[in-house]
Amino acid sequence: MKRENTRERILEAAAELVHYKGFNHTGLKEILDASGVPKGSFYFFFKSKEELGLALVDFYAERIAEVARSCFEDDSRSPIGRLRSFFQWAYVRFETDGCEKGCPIGNLCQEMSDLSPAFREKLESVTERMALGVARLLQQAKETGELPGHLDPGETARFITSSWQGALLTMKVVKTLDPLYRFDRFIFGEILSGGKPDGSS
Amino acid sequence: MKRENTRERILEAAAELVHYKGFNHTGLKEILDASGVPKGSFYFFFKSKEELGLALVDFYAERIAEVARSCFEDDSRSPIGRLRSFFQWAYVRFETDGCEKGCPIGNLCQEMSDLSPAFREKLESVTERMALGVARLLQQAKETGELPGHLDPGETARFITSSWQGALLTMKVVKTLDPLYRFDRFIFGEILSGGKPDGSS
Repeated sequence: MKRENTRERILEAAAELVHYKGFNHTGLKEILDASGVPKGSFYFFFKSKEELGLALVDFYAERIAEVARSCFEDDSRSPIGRLRSFFQWAYVRFETDGCEKGCPIGNLCQEMSDLSPAFREKLESVTERMALGVARLLQQAKETGELPGHLDPGETARFITSSWQGALLTMKVVKTLDPLYRFDRFIFGEILSGGKPDGSS
Repeated sequence: MKRENTRERILEAAAELVHYKGFNHTGLKEILDASGVPKGSFYFFFKSKEELGLALVDFYAERIAEVARSCFEDDSRSPIGRLRSFFQWAYVRFETDGCEKGCPIGNLCQEMSDLSPAFREKLESVTERMALGVARLLQQAKETGELPGHLDPGETARFITSSWQGALLTMKVVKTLDPLYRFDRFIFGEILSGGKPDGSS
């Protein structure tokens, strides 16, 4: 087995388990069993379970960023239309997943921010990077007049990404997509349309 | 020690620990140590750690409901003003708490919804009860013309409570009150004011 493959297998197995069960509730033994990697080999790649956890944040963030990039760079849509297409991708994804698990980054923010300064710092930088991606789109929307003039792109982006985390958390407990569709209506139909309830993009 | 006091001491010790560390990451031994209650006595009150967890959901919900009632029944304010006063109470509370811990109910929704059907059901009913309390206020606001006419009180209430969970989750990671103040501006200054950026209540 090549070294790169082994590291990747550990990350993939851990990503599945931690997304479902949380970081602290997932034992290292479970990760080793699921990846088929012996303990000694694990410690060749990661000094500790926490170091694996920090690498997982990057792993999750990169998977989300890949989807975001493909939506945000779609020139056939307006800037706000591109943003909405990312969330529309997510609605389908969570329907497939039975409204389980939610956002792996949001889950770790909730679970780890108070317990590990290293996690908190990494999660903050990843969360900020996601908000900046949304802010750049909204800045474009401001320049074309698509964004209501009084809204600040950065502040609006941060409200949207934060509100999205709440929608995903609520989805997990009600086990329907209603909180996501409600998020869509209020964000795109109210805030981004300037309070016009028929706003669509 | 009276029986009622013992049960209460277990709940109070568990509430502190679980709020900070999460349910699965808090050991029964830690709860027993913190409450000074022997193991045998614990099992007199709770059949299992999960049964304690379900009682904790009620315990947390009642503490939040007490504050909500005192804000929501304040006749010196308009319905939307009463709602806002609840969140204003929370901003002060989380500043005092150093932006830690977040909402104990939201944390458990995130952590336990996929892992325990009993938790999920209880958390869903508590979450729904909170949203209904907000919906009743917004219904009053609709009747007095304070709520923009096109908004549905129940849907708006559910969006607000869900978005609030996202704001608290984001607060935990950035460790400032900015996500809460941003929530305030977008909910009260945009959505509840019908898109007029100067909306205040």
